[in-house]
Amino acid sequence: MTQVTQYHVNVMFGDCDPAGIVFFPNFSKWMDAASHHYFHACGVPPWRELYNETRLIGTPLLEIHTKFYVSATYGQSLVIHTQITSWGRKTFEQLHQVYRGDTLLCEGTETRIFVIRPNPNGDEIQSIAVPQWIKDKCQ
Amino acid sequence: MTQVTQYHVNVMFGDCDPAGIVFFPNFSKWMDAASHHYFHACGVPPWRELYNETRLIGTPLLEIHTKFYVSATYGQSLVIHTQITSWGRKTFEQLHQVYRGDTLLCEGTETRIFVIRPNPNGDEIQSIAVPQWIKDKCQ
Amino acid sequence: MTQVTQYHVNVMFGDCDPAGIVFFPNFSKWMDAASHHYFHACGVPPWRELYNETRLIGTPLLEIHTKFYVSATYGQSLVIHTQITSWGRKTFEQLHQVYRGDTLLCEGTETRIFVIRPNPNGDEIQSIAVPQWIKDKCQ
Amino acid sequence: MTQVTQYHVNVMFGDCDPAGIVFFPNFSKWMDAASHHYFHACGVPPWRELYNETRLIGTPLLEIHTKFYVSATYGQSLVIHTQITSWGRKTFEQLHQVYRGDTLLCEGTETRIFVIRPNPNGDEIQSIAVPQWIKDKCQ
Repeated sequence: MTQVTQYHVNVMFGDCDPAGIVFFPNFSKWMDAASHHYFHACGVPPWRELYNETRLIGTPLLEIHTKFYVSATYGQSLVIHTQITSWGRKTFEQLHQVYRGDTLLCEGTETRIFVIRPNPNGDEIQSIAVPQWIKDKCQ
Repeated sequence: MTQVTQYHVNVMFGDCDPAGIVFFPNFSKWMDAASHHYFHACGVPPWRELYNETRLIGTPLLEIHTKFYVSATYGQSLVIHTQITSWGRKTFEQLHQVYRGDTLLCEGTETRIFVIRPNPNGDEIQSIAVPQWIKDKCQ
Repeated sequence: MTQVTQYHVNVMFGDCDPAGIVFFPNFSKWMDAASHHYFHACGVPPWRELYNETRLIGTPLLEIHTKFYVSATYGQSLVIHTQITSWGRKTFEQLHQVYRGDTLLCEGTETRIFVIRPNPNGDEIQSIAVPQWIKDKCQ
Repeated sequence: MTQVTQYHVNVMFGDCDPAGIVFFPNFSKWMDAASHHYFHACGVPPWRELYNETRLIGTPLLEIHTKFYVSATYGQSLVIHTQITSWGRKTFEQLHQVYRGDTLLCEGTETRIFVIRPNPNGDEIQSIAVPQWIKDKCQ
């Protein structure tokens, strides 16, 4: 069974552009927050708490694909519905749908990988297979 | 009597910097949102709804002064307590105090003015005396 | 013949996230700036200067599709190569390729439309056919 | 003798708010970038390159105080003039002045400290005395 989580966003004045509407990269920022929240809601601790044990530092993006249907502006409340639509060996795809009330404003998929920093003093980053315990928590 | 409003913020991953803590200009962004919310909570409509009748476009900043005491990170919930601490003829000062639970993380004053765009087709901006009806609603 | 413009970006500390790398929505922000710069480089004035005559307020996004290959961090200089890859009756597609030196870090397409605000006192926004004079300047 | 460095910023569409002008927290972001650039221009490597040897992770803010005189909008080029106006035992104060051509748009002081992360696997942060070798490079 697929879990769908909800993440709430209040649009701020500073999220909007000279056209008076949400500057579109903020939707990506909110989807990223919804992605973090998804794992948290499924019982996975924040990456920073997992680091010492697992060297995991996050789930960077390989690809995003977003469609914008209706604009939003400051003072409005949005809800992002998030689910994982597929798991690969190393990757997974999340679908985020941004609603204002019943209106779907925008939706996008993110393709992400799990990465670790094997040496805390180094800059190197490595992708790893999807950790099974995380996958288990999300299903 | 002074009104104190509360504005809630959930810190996102993208609000944080390479040191893992909130990138400080985001506190200014949130204080700005708290300033908007203050007027809204006092019964003043969003500036965009007032424009046709009043030409009012907002309350730009003359000055900010912010002190940072304790850092915050993503996944945490903050509350901003906002009040107006003084009114001038054209200016007013707002105090914003950012709390995480009982801990005061940061606080700042903003000095703002009310401005109008007298001609909707023009770029010109004019400061005006504090509108009495707005002042009345905030006290 | 297709014009390809170049837009330069210096990555700031505040553009980076707790993993120490550019927070990905900033690539979308920079592609948007590169999109504006493209028209400017082709001889089209900023939208705000065109407004009184044309009611044009910008070219909002219908869709973005971005692939991330290599990360970047603060202190680095990037160059975005931008071109229009297709024109529809009402839409156009821009391709943005972000380079650090010879390394392609990320690339994305944007599908955009031209919109006007027919009434300066209103919130309404209308899509219009691609203005021929703009298309002419871009070829 | 005091060094004054210059940091260049191109204002992007996404830096501006519904009033069509730079959203003020972006001035703080740019001053922060100018602060980083100041040290770099004085011959201090990025903090991330110093970390392994020094555990230094940056110079977080204790306090900012900014005055806004003239607004700016997208497509404009700004230059930030930065200098250190005083050194304490643990703190230092930087002055940033933002110009568009000869026009001073805004200026602000930042009070900062040097901090280290003594344990790379921990979250703890400690302030330290101003490193003499850094102070020497800046004078």
